[in-house]
Amino acid sequence: MASAAPRWIEAINKALNLPDNKGKIIYQVATIDATNTPRVRSQVHRGFLSPEGRDDLPLLVTSTDTRSPKVSQVLGNQRVQLCWWMEGSQDQFRITGFAHIHPSPTPGASSPTPIPDEAIALNLLAKQGFDWETKRREVFAGMKPEMRASWCTPYPPGTPISSYEEQKGWPKSVPLEDEAATDEDKRNLQTALRNFGLMLFEPVEVDWVALGAQPNKRLVFRRQGELWVEHLVSP
Amino acid sequence: MASAAPRWIEAINKALNLPDNKGKIIYQVATIDATNTPRVRSQVHRGFLSPEGRDDLPLLVTSTDTRSPKVSQVLGNQRVQLCWWMEGSQDQFRITGFAHIHPSPTPGASSPTPIPDEAIALNLLAKQGFDWETKRREVFAGMKPEMRASWCTPYPPGTPISSYEEQKGWPKSVPLEDEAATDEDKRNLQTALRNFGLMLFEPVEVDWVALGAQPNKRLVFRRQGELWVEHLVSP
Repeated sequence: MASAAPRWIEAINKALNLPDNKGKIIYQVATIDATNTPRVRSQVHRGFLSPEGRDDLPLLVTSTDTRSPKVSQVLGNQRVQLCWWMEGSQDQFRITGFAHIHPSPTPGASSPTPIPDEAIALNLLAKQGFDWETKRREVFAGMKPEMRASWCTPYPPGTPISSYEEQKGWPKSVPLEDEAATDEDKRNLQTALRNFGLMLFEPVEVDWVALGAQPNKRLVFRRQGELWVEHLVSP
Repeated sequence: MASAAPRWIEAINKALNLPDNKGKIIYQVATIDATNTPRVRSQVHRGFLSPEGRDDLPLLVTSTDTRSPKVSQVLGNQRVQLCWWMEGSQDQFRITGFAHIHPSPTPGASSPTPIPDEAIALNLLAKQGFDWETKRREVFAGMKPEMRASWCTPYPPGTPISSYEEQKGWPKSVPLEDEAATDEDKRNLQTALRNFGLMLFEPVEVDWVALGAQPNKRLVFRRQGELWVEHLVSP
């Protein structure tokens, strides 16, 4: 059974563990909007996740406000690419694959985005009955209270507001259940949890260029069927 | 005459000049390929450029190997977005606009990409007879000799190669005219100059979010006609 982690994940972890790349867990994720314009924004990497027994099919885990425009962009086109630039070592990983958004199960919240047939890892997780809600709450709990407050703004991200004054009444910090001191804290926690979604990427291609090496090295990993195939390319 | 530089360029320059953002001149540029997949890669910011007398219409200047796939992507769809993440201050600038690629005038090299009617700054530069070739050579000259070598690889970026051994014979450094010591240096310089292209972005929207401020501040600048209009939005 082909279950060893792919070599590209080793390369990412090795780069991430270099002292020069400390804290480099932010990548830029590109999607396409309804007007056929590319959109790209920074997101925080929250770790890897694999189906049981299939370390060869890792996903990247990040998060989103489920009211943000990227959700409808992913609904319209699940092909995405992210660019992970590790400045310290000058390594760039460009990861192409499928995005999947897993929102709150609260009634009235959005539904998980559909999983394309080619997304074999996401389909396998579904078949294995993966507990997305526990994972979602775990990632949520791992955030700083100030970060959690960003999911209980009264308006969806990008909505025009009249002045900075208006923001002054917004929650600045959202504690977890066992630390929630007031009714307001509890309401904010519910709101933030309702707007918080997991965002998953299932890679089918990883293009790694090492610009810190002379001459530059570039290696492309492609998933063919269920196997990762790699080849050298000109940088 | 509305010729003052737009406020967003001030915001970018202010952020860039913070000691915490030292050297943060790399942004991620998203394009769309022929299979309707978004593509995103890191590029180095090489400064701003405006039509004469029109500081209100600045372009961003970067560069590319004109053999790279992004050139055909821009030919297919000139709408691009770039994401400029300034880690030190936690400022993110997402710039939407038109891309334009200006290659070498050498016979056999590619042609400049067409300029859309809405790209008023690029059209104005053309009308003013802007000397792109001088600019191209100036940006080329500003690169390190090792960087210049990346434009004289024998194959277009992404071409499969048989082994790292093959790369050993490739030029490692390309000196400029007055430093070229050998015939090989001179040939390499011609090759690199032929493959080197300017890449310009004409912004029509700049979405700035200051995640270092509490509460987070987000401001969107849009070009309407020839005027920049700004409004606050929910972060």
